[in-house]
Amino acid sequence: MPELIRGNAVIGQSGGPTAVINQSLVGVVEGIRLGLHAAGYISRILGMRHGVKGLTKGDLIDLTDTDQDRLDRLALTPSAALGSTRDKPDTAYCERVLDACRAQDARYFFYIGGNDSSDTCRIVREMAVRSNYDLRCFHVPKTVDNDLLENDHTPGFPSAARFVAMACMADFMDNISLPGIKINVVMGRHAGFLTAASALARRRDREFDEVPSHTTDGPQLIYCPEVAFDLDRFVADVESIYSVKGRCHVVVSEGISDKEGRAIGATLIKNAQVDAHGNVQLSGSGALGDQLGDLLKEKLTPVGGKPPRVRADTFGYVQRCWPDASIIDRIEARRSGRFAAMLALQGHADGSVAIVRTGSGSAAFMGEREGEAYHSEFKRVDLSAVAAKTRHMPREFLSGHNNVSKKFIEYCLPLVGDLPGFERL
Amino acid sequence: MPELIRGNAVIGQSGGPTAVINQSLVGVVEGIRLGLHAAGYISRILGMRHGVKGLTKGDLIDLTDTDQDRLDRLALTPSAALGSTRDKPDTAYCERVLDACRAQDARYFFYIGGNDSSDTCRIVREMAVRSNYDLRCFHVPKTVDNDLLENDHTPGFPSAARFVAMACMADFMDNISLPGIKINVVMGRHAGFLTAASALARRRDREFDEVPSHTTDGPQLIYCPEVAFDLDRFVADVESIYSVKGRCHVVVSEGISDKEGRAIGATLIKNAQVDAHGNVQLSGSGALGDQLGDLLKEKLTPVGGKPPRVRADTFGYVQRCWPDASIIDRIEARRSGRFAAMLALQGHADGSVAIVRTGSGSAAFMGEREGEAYHSEFKRVDLSAVAAKTRHMPREFLSGHNNVSKKFIEYCLPLVGDLPGFERL
Repeated sequence: MPELIRGNAVIGQSGGPTAVINQSLVGVVEGIRLGLHAAGYISRILGMRHGVKGLTKGDLIDLTDTDQDRLDRLALTPSAALGSTRDKPDTAYCERVLDACRAQDARYFFYIGGNDSSDTCRIVREMAVRSNYDLRCFHVPKTVDNDLLENDHTPGFPSAARFVAMACMADFMDNISLPGIKINVVMGRHAGFLTAASALARRRDREFDEVPSHTTDGPQLIYCPEVAFDLDRFVADVESIYSVKGRCHVVVSEGISDKEGRAIGATLIKNAQVDAHGNVQLSGSGALGDQLGDLLKEKLTPVGGKPPRVRADTFGYVQRCWPDASIIDRIEARRSGRFAAMLALQGHADGSVAIVRTGSGSAAFMGEREGEAYHSEFKRVDLSAVAAKTRHMPREFLSGHNNVSKKFIEYCLPLVGDLPGFERL
Repeated sequence: MPELIRGNAVIGQSGGPTAVINQSLVGVVEGIRLGLHAAGYISRILGMRHGVKGLTKGDLIDLTDTDQDRLDRLALTPSAALGSTRDKPDTAYCERVLDACRAQDARYFFYIGGNDSSDTCRIVREMAVRSNYDLRCFHVPKTVDNDLLENDHTPGFPSAARFVAMACMADFMDNISLPGIKINVVMGRHAGFLTAASALARRRDREFDEVPSHTTDGPQLIYCPEVAFDLDRFVADVESIYSVKGRCHVVVSEGISDKEGRAIGATLIKNAQVDAHGNVQLSGSGALGDQLGDLLKEKLTPVGGKPPRVRADTFGYVQRCWPDASIIDRIEARRSGRFAAMLALQGHADGSVAIVRTGSGSAAFMGEREGEAYHSEFKRVDLSAVAAKTRHMPREFLSGHNNVSKKFIEYCLPLVGDLPGFERL
């Protein structure tokens, strides 16, 4: 056996909940129970209520003996079962985290979350090293935004992408039924992956005869935050489709920004709330979609003398917590948690779990005979490789300023699971 | 055989699309093919593109020989496959409808939609009688609002209710994970059935130990349009829960109105669009939720010195078109269409199809041993009994000014199908 230390483990969940973050929680718990707990190194497995906030207050829940049936049901439940937090600890806060770990005789620290959570792991670990307290810190990835470096994709994204794709499929059919201009606003402050997933809603384009064209199925226009957003160009884009078809189906990221980097949403929202990270509230408001809609009503040329019918929906929290998760996402989220527990068992002092794609999954669009099955593996990466860094959509996933590429579809489609096949007259 | 007339049939879809309105379309088509078409009375089955709007323009699609496999796939596709319309024909418009029927040698007129569609059927039928043109007019019910008289419930409602219940289940778990005040805005201009369906999201209350209490699972506060909405009382309601729990989960109907009957939403929305029925646009905008959220941020007492975290989501069009329809809804929508074709075969000159509940479905909450299976049948009612009338939530379905009753849960739960069982720590 590698050099291991005896003590307790603490586990927390942080940031926005997802449909599968409880899979990761259960993965860590069962990974420890089958490994370090069974071997006598870890005595108690303690869940932090609302992440580091609960840890520093001693608000913990003992998961050591939680019934496995209950864990299995918990894994299928969306949201963060331990409670989550948006607290981003500074040095003083991390001191208190470390003190709390000492008080609990915690020697293993598992934190499930995004790039801020991996940064918390990194700071706490460095502080522990400096103070000669052997605390082993592991980060388990989670984010619907899919914005962690080193990962092919992150748990939570495939399920949210599945919701966005299905909602856009159905909403486009609705848009054909009662024509007009429809704007859907999708989550993702700095990374456009989730917004781009709306392209999976296109039927014809999934046949891959050509690069997706904005003149076929909706969404016809897709605006990711990686491309500077220009209001005049946006109006012209919509006009070019609306003037021909009498309808237009648009998806925009909540995080679209102008070429100076100012969020289009933030400049429009009154009474904007700022979170602990200094970010303006984008989710939980319909303001961006409504303002873009108002702009179109004002600027577009009326067709047949009538002002355009414009509607805007903001998909909201349901996209991150909808219960019908992607099967692959469920499996990978669970395995990410188990892999973190295994890293601890192997004697690693710290690390972040990352997903590597080892089978392209081209079978999802080429069929089982010609395509390759989807497959993924897990690896350990340094906390500093992920911590506080943001991954963006690579240029090859974008097409022009208002579309995504075939490469993105090939990347994303295998992750979301079967989508319904719609028929048209 | 009863006295039947020879000619063609025209079928249209009208109003907001649903997840199952194509089931009804397919039901009418297959009902005719197995009946009046097979017997040689109906020659062609013609679909109206965008309802009466397409009919008057001769924009029709021949469904007589459409492949049954294709119809079966179409039935599972949300939205109105023929295209829909919001046109509400006046007398002159109905004259043109009648002229178009003459031009097509149409003797059977089927219209799938809500109370406006049944009114169109009624007017066209009366006009045909007066002009001695034998046109037989049948209305097939459809509306997510569930606001048709004579019906236990209407096709489209169970599927939308299923989406609302599942979204609120997941969103409440999200609200526990990251506490704050969450407002969800649900469709239903005058009838609160869909808003009330959010109560199915409650876990403990589904055990029926007592009348749902607003102090347990979310949504804790439910505001239907049947009860006058008072902004001060709303703030006090939220405060009473938020001050104790530090969070509050609220559902409001888009159609909430003050005691003078003025829509709360309409008074707040800038650039309001007015449709052909003189109604202000409520859906396709996040304005109502955002304004209620702003009100709470302004009025609520801060907890721990911090202003409340308030988020508002407006469920939008996805609630009426989400592809995972209720199984019962799929079956009943299909049978409603077939029943209309059967009424025509039986020699009726007109009528509206209505759903009657013949088995309570108490098995959905009491278990199969103690409860009764759900069962429904169909009946013909006069067009005038449904046309242009609105059904509201009966008083017995409401509890106080901000909740629904156990009776409503018993009414609604059997319709939506199995809901996921969530686990908590």
